[in-house]
Amino acid sequence: MSASLLTITSTTRVIASIARRAPARPLALVARWQHQERGRRAFSASSSASLNVADMSSRDLASLKVNRDRLMNDIHTTSEWGKGEAWGSGKTEIGMSRLSLSDSDKQARDWFRNVTESLGCKVTVDAMGNQFAVRPGLDNDAPPTYVGSHLDTQPTGGRYDGILGVTAGVEMLKVLNDNWVETAYPVGVVNWTNEEGARFPASMVASGVWAESIPIEKAHNLRSVIPPGDTATMRSELERIGYLGNVPASYKATPMAAHFELHIEQGPILEAENRRIGIVQGVQSYKWFTLTVRGRDSHTGATSFQHRADSLLTASKMILASHRIASRHGALASTGIIKALPGSTNTVPGLVEFSLDIRAPLDETVETVEAECRSTFDKIIAGETGESTEGVNDACTSSSRSCSIEWRTDFVSPATHFHDECISCVTHAAKDLCGGGETQGKNVGAWGKLMTSGAGHDSVYANKRCPASMIFIPCRDGVSHNPAEYSSPDACADGANVLLGAVLRYDRLRAERGY
Amino acid sequence: MSASLLTITSTTRVIASIARRAPARPLALVARWQHQERGRRAFSASSSASLNVADMSSRDLASLKVNRDRLMNDIHTTSEWGKGEAWGSGKTEIGMSRLSLSDSDKQARDWFRNVTESLGCKVTVDAMGNQFAVRPGLDNDAPPTYVGSHLDTQPTGGRYDGILGVTAGVEMLKVLNDNWVETAYPVGVVNWTNEEGARFPASMVASGVWAESIPIEKAHNLRSVIPPGDTATMRSELERIGYLGNVPASYKATPMAAHFELHIEQGPILEAENRRIGIVQGVQSYKWFTLTVRGRDSHTGATSFQHRADSLLTASKMILASHRIASRHGALASTGIIKALPGSTNTVPGLVEFSLDIRAPLDETVETVEAECRSTFDKIIAGETGESTEGVNDACTSSSRSCSIEWRTDFVSPATHFHDECISCVTHAAKDLCGGGETQGKNVGAWGKLMTSGAGHDSVYANKRCPASMIFIPCRDGVSHNPAEYSSPDACADGANVLLGAVLRYDRLRAERGY
Repeated sequence: MSASLLTITSTTRVIASIARRAPARPLALVARWQHQERGRRAFSASSSASLNVADMSSRDLASLKVNRDRLMNDIHTTSEWGKGEAWGSGKTEIGMSRLSLSDSDKQARDWFRNVTESLGCKVTVDAMGNQFAVRPGLDNDAPPTYVGSHLDTQPTGGRYDGILGVTAGVEMLKVLNDNWVETAYPVGVVNWTNEEGARFPASMVASGVWAESIPIEKAHNLRSVIPPGDTATMRSELERIGYLGNVPASYKATPMAAHFELHIEQGPILEAENRRIGIVQGVQSYKWFTLTVRGRDSHTGATSFQHRADSLLTASKMILASHRIASRHGALASTGIIKALPGSTNTVPGLVEFSLDIRAPLDETVETVEAECRSTFDKIIAGETGESTEGVNDACTSSSRSCSIEWRTDFVSPATHFHDECISCVTHAAKDLCGGGETQGKNVGAWGKLMTSGAGHDSVYANKRCPASMIFIPCRDGVSHNPAEYSSPDACADGANVLLGAVLRYDRLRAERGY
Repeated sequence: MSASLLTITSTTRVIASIARRAPARPLALVARWQHQERGRRAFSASSSASLNVADMSSRDLASLKVNRDRLMNDIHTTSEWGKGEAWGSGKTEIGMSRLSLSDSDKQARDWFRNVTESLGCKVTVDAMGNQFAVRPGLDNDAPPTYVGSHLDTQPTGGRYDGILGVTAGVEMLKVLNDNWVETAYPVGVVNWTNEEGARFPASMVASGVWAESIPIEKAHNLRSVIPPGDTATMRSELERIGYLGNVPASYKATPMAAHFELHIEQGPILEAENRRIGIVQGVQSYKWFTLTVRGRDSHTGATSFQHRADSLLTASKMILASHRIASRHGALASTGIIKALPGSTNTVPGLVEFSLDIRAPLDETVETVEAECRSTFDKIIAGETGESTEGVNDACTSSSRSCSIEWRTDFVSPATHFHDECISCVTHAAKDLCGGGETQGKNVGAWGKLMTSGAGHDSVYANKRCPASMIFIPCRDGVSHNPAEYSSPDACADGANVLLGAVLRYDRLRAERGY
């Protein structure tokens, strides 16, 4: 620390203690002064001149606010790397196509390292390419409280899914620095690799390896499925872009005290009910399958229906049947990938592969839907008609030749229940922002809702190894995984404020109990 | 003509006239002797030493036979270029993957040029890469009688579809040479480009340009659809492999007196009825469409069924509905290509493109099926349920968001009726081979059947500009457009014998009427 810095530190110490003594005075004012005087925070252990979270009242905590425009600027400038299809005429009305470990993902990663280092963090990279940026606390012998999400996107995704969570983490670091806030324990921001599972077909795979739920060899050997013909593996791409870190990908090597994640809802509920914050209590159960239907290639003009083994017609019946079965159980069943071979207008496809994604709040419901799909698909294969096959087979010309079906389970994510303490920190931070209100059923005041996430998130794996919770904000029309995905700047700032508040409340909780 | 050749010619003339006077004596014996003495036929106008088709009796014509093993050898040796998946353990039990204008197609084309030139033909190539090999007749001022088919295959095709027709044409040339047969008019063999329409998505496009039914610019600009990501056009590939000929692709530049095509049935009827020869009277009507269903990308976990516009679920209903509508009208409806975007397990596809191929013997039936598909698809889009939508929509959770549909007509091939004289020549040649028999309904003796082709063939376009007909032989299990496509050597020889006989009978007919 330089001599001049020491001098300024002495000055600010006085102001900080004034602020502590007079909490009604907006901390932001003090912080702005400090910022102007001192410039950016030096990378060092905590300074005694700072505001200690442990000493801050709930009112102090509530007075810390993110800078909305700075946050939006981070979202939009980093979205230049890997930008996708435009959905509007505005310069930020453009979707994203930043596939994991692509060149544009490397650019986003480099930015993340540079910005967090410049904010005084130490950044490590593990063997899955997960980036951990840690800002020291007063006691650095205990693990950090993390904020985490991801910077990769769907091939035709938007600029909020994942990106908001990471940039809000960066904004949190900036707010802490601006305000000379010292946390009791370190706080960190993590950028998880390949959360989407779009390029390497296993979502949340890198947090899964960190949780030791997925073997690293399996993850490293995942092959790219986008673009078609690409044969890169996760490991080869990690090496290529320089993000195969030397820290083992494990919660043991990089422990977390807690994990908070801010995310857009990706569904329509908050918007429809005009609520600002979703307090996420858990994530629904889901299973992913790849189904292979084998029939026989034959000529479309010369082969009567009776002589066909049409794998695509059969798969179409199955897709419909899965939808009906899921509907009946209040579950979801979806097919996102379908491939028919050989792929010629005048050849009946002999091979179809399709994905099946089954979700429900309860593990048992997912199991039931899977079991019914299995038995119904077998009936479709057998050419049985009537009620038992969901009415999808009758009126089709029956064929003397039949297809076969093969199921492969790609991914199982049981229902996740987040940690009560984390949920409580989120709830209090949200009340700080939105002005209190009681919990009635799933509703919290007029502004919030207790929710179960329909989508999987890295918080699912984080929750296996540390307390975790999530914060949702509304997104327009519930649209996600689409270029037109959109959350307003105010909604983004709401979420980032609750994230900041939850992390600080959790840090204070840790300080109180001493670990 | 050299002096020594003249001498031999004088000798053979005597033998030839003996043969003509004693038609009971197998022509093949005479021919073999000639062949040994003389070596291969020189490329020249006809020699007066030869057997003139005009002078040959029906019995003479019937005594000319193809060499089965030589034909099979041509099929199997040329199938080394572009061989595909094995379906059995035998060395010829391998399918084909010889896409039009690929490197392997070039090898097959080079072989075709070399072998036909070595048999005394003049080979020209037109601007669509169609190869025309012409063996002179006695009168070369009139157009040749052609045998034609194609050497390209489906991506996972077999070694008989198309290939049999061309190699049987080459075998015909060999038989004529072996036996010193002189036709009244030239005979030719044509290898049509991209008949399959698999790589460049318009089947029979090169005969279509020849017939002036398809503008050459449209054909030249067709882009490869296999392999994915290939951006080559027909023209760029013709140039690349050196088959962009300088003869205009037009029936005016390369006129035909008639066009005969031998083909495997590609359906199960001949085999099921134990018949050797199909006498093809025409080709059924068909239309090809590309349908685009636009919905909205959304998250599979976070988007309820009510909030989805699921383009793949919608397309699945349409595929099923088209099958039902076609079933009801005794027509065929098939989808060979389907593409769902963005193609991620956890994203509901916002865009699906699929092909629809509608066929029926009558144009009116195709129109009816198309019209019913259009109205039913509109109802599916509108979310209407019940009988009117073929029962495929009910029991699905209805959605408040709907998809849109767009039809593009890719190809229209009205029903084709082949030429009576050509059909008659095929019928007589088949009777020569199989031993006569009367026509009763669709059956001809116990061995033959009058048929309508389910598949399109280059003969459809040829028939627009000259008399044409086709010959079918049985193929195992009706399988085609599949590696396991198979016709026995005896069946192939049967077809090649009928082809040879039909061409010679047609030549004799031309000689009789003087044009």
